[in-house]
Amino acid sequence: MKFKDKTKQKIGIIGGGQLGKMMILAAKKMGFYITILDPSKDCPAHSIADQHLIADFDDSQAVKKLAQKSDLITYEFEHINVEILKKLQAAAYQVYPTAHSLEIIQDKYQQKKILKENQIAVPDFKKVDSPAAIKAKAKEFGYPLMLKSCRGGYDGKGNFLLKNEAEVEAGFKALGAGKKSLMLEEFIPFKKEISVIAARSLTGEMKVYPIGENEHRENILYQTKVPAQISAKLKKRAKELAQAVLQLFEGIGIFCVEMFVTEAEQLLVNEIAPRPHNSGHYTIEACLTSQFEQHIRAITGLPLGATNLIRPAVMHNILGSGQSGKAQLIGLDLALALEGVKVHIYQKSISRPGRKMGHLTVTAAKLEKAAANALKASQLIEIKGKP
Amino acid sequence: MKFKDKTKQKIGIIGGGQLGKMMILAAKKMGFYITILDPSKDCPAHSIADQHLIADFDDSQAVKKLAQKSDLITYEFEHINVEILKKLQAAAYQVYPTAHSLEIIQDKYQQKKILKENQIAVPDFKKVDSPAAIKAKAKEFGYPLMLKSCRGGYDGKGNFLLKNEAEVEAGFKALGAGKKSLMLEEFIPFKKEISVIAARSLTGEMKVYPIGENEHRENILYQTKVPAQISAKLKKRAKELAQAVLQLFEGIGIFCVEMFVTEAEQLLVNEIAPRPHNSGHYTIEACLTSQFEQHIRAITGLPLGATNLIRPAVMHNILGSGQSGKAQLIGLDLALALEGVKVHIYQKSISRPGRKMGHLTVTAAKLEKAAANALKASQLIEIKGKP
Repeated sequence: MKFKDKTKQKIGIIGGGQLGKMMILAAKKMGFYITILDPSKDCPAHSIADQHLIADFDDSQAVKKLAQKSDLITYEFEHINVEILKKLQAAAYQVYPTAHSLEIIQDKYQQKKILKENQIAVPDFKKVDSPAAIKAKAKEFGYPLMLKSCRGGYDGKGNFLLKNEAEVEAGFKALGAGKKSLMLEEFIPFKKEISVIAARSLTGEMKVYPIGENEHRENILYQTKVPAQISAKLKKRAKELAQAVLQLFEGIGIFCVEMFVTEAEQLLVNEIAPRPHNSGHYTIEACLTSQFEQHIRAITGLPLGATNLIRPAVMHNILGSGQSGKAQLIGLDLALALEGVKVHIYQKSISRPGRKMGHLTVTAAKLEKAAANALKASQLIEIKGKP
Repeated sequence: MKFKDKTKQKIGIIGGGQLGKMMILAAKKMGFYITILDPSKDCPAHSIADQHLIADFDDSQAVKKLAQKSDLITYEFEHINVEILKKLQAAAYQVYPTAHSLEIIQDKYQQKKILKENQIAVPDFKKVDSPAAIKAKAKEFGYPLMLKSCRGGYDGKGNFLLKNEAEVEAGFKALGAGKKSLMLEEFIPFKKEISVIAARSLTGEMKVYPIGENEHRENILYQTKVPAQISAKLKKRAKELAQAVLQLFEGIGIFCVEMFVTEAEQLLVNEIAPRPHNSGHYTIEACLTSQFEQHIRAITGLPLGATNLIRPAVMHNILGSGQSGKAQLIGLDLALALEGVKVHIYQKSISRPGRKMGHLTVTAAKLEKAAANALKASQLIEIKGKP
């Protein structure tokens, strides 16, 4: 083993947004040295990184420089040019999760295809390349149905809900008119949406977190409640599914597996993120080991930490409201005066409507109490742009 | 109020050691901008501060510069030239805890005198300025007794235990031979040593943490166990005492009040630290609000957070062992494989025997389990200097 003292491994992170920032806060506690690559000089992670390479994510020279400065590389988002990572791995640089895992996950069609081939239930899907193909397949699936870009989507971007045949042309056009590969997915009238955060380490060790129950509003995560209000049997099954997914994709680090719970209590895997996830932020306050610390442990070859839930928790995102402009936070005093409220502010200088500016997590002895205080706090706190 | 968005207040910290580092980790979560002043280019807080003024703590120009760059100033240790802080306050800069609080606390004789005058029980004490004066007073107190420098001591430095009259000359010489003011204190054969971490905010709000039970070895804190194994009545009394001390010294921020529990179940205040304290590190994992977040909340005028103990906890310091040299951490894997173990490494580049290099906190459902795993972990982990 190269590093007797594992904290001496220098970590490079592609991306300096809030996920990168929270990774660094966890890593710094244990004493790691961190370099980030991000085009924005004042990105959230800037001030707490040891070094910041200011360059585009797709700048292969810059990513190579990051690798040279680091003993291992990780990333906070999945839309990275995987060819760059492949070349780095070929040159014996360590990249986690691996380019292989990322390549499959980046393409939603490939991701679903492999899941299906391995008996992991997913909503039915098909590749489509024209309005005619969409209409033909719709005869089988029935409306409504989801049209998705195979690559590059997040927070609902890259998805288009087709309510009826009249919307097919508009949807096809909105998602690039055939310039990008598209897939069609049956629409699942799910009872609940849950997500399972799980980690797999360099040694193959796995740990799964308690199941979170998500609510989205306007395609952006609005809140996560933990523990999810589903049966013990479903929880067990969801955890097994998440582990199967991590094995399948040879995941190293934290992964998030989003699933639908159907009316018939069936679990369908919706999407996979090869990184710490918004729906896992609750782990910072509510679990023995946060998803960020766990990610650092996993990719540096340290033993994984216990994932026990210490107290029920509810997480709300704090999105930019009002107009765009210099970010101003209002009502922090009122929110923090409520018991169990912890507020995370990402330090993004510019607020835009719907932009993720921070989040709050509320823990309490009972989930109901946490939910009540989280709702109050989220209504008291606001980030908006100054004109 | 000047700041509608309180997170826009820039915070200056005198000192960039582990306490400064942990303050910053808490402050960054909430989005504050931090400047530190520390003479060491690679001090623990260096890499996560927004700005670092490299200068001596007593460099009045540098401290003034720190104040000019910040909306408020705090500090991580009490041995600061208080005259510099007084001048800043006179020029309307905000300093918390105030120069007034610090000035009294810095001088152990003044500190004890004021406590005694306000009916707060302390070990009996007297100012002494010669071996003859020590010997005379010893007739009343009896041996053993503690000779202390009134200023500048920490981790047992500045204290000398006089076992008998034959040691008086040596002790007097060891503590400066009369060049520094000295006091004599009766030796308390205490049953337990406890510490109470408490916060008082700009608005006068107060919160007290669960009582911790300390064990020192070679004058350095070895471990803190929480909750302390003392009666509910004593706990209540200790909390009241801590609040009385904070009121008395008009404390703003986190204070630590160390107390002796005598055989007769009496509480005597031993020492007061006007800052987050080593014996309060357990709050990071075990309480709803860490002492570091609480300190930031208190000095920025935010509401104080709940101090509930979520799980019993045991904290062990990780001291440099072996020889001095480039710090090398050994056994982290083994320690982290134990349930509930969290390791904090301060990133001090040089390890010296007895130097505080990190700490570990173990939480568990039962205190006995936490203590057992903490002992194991502390024996598995080691930081030593590379030759």
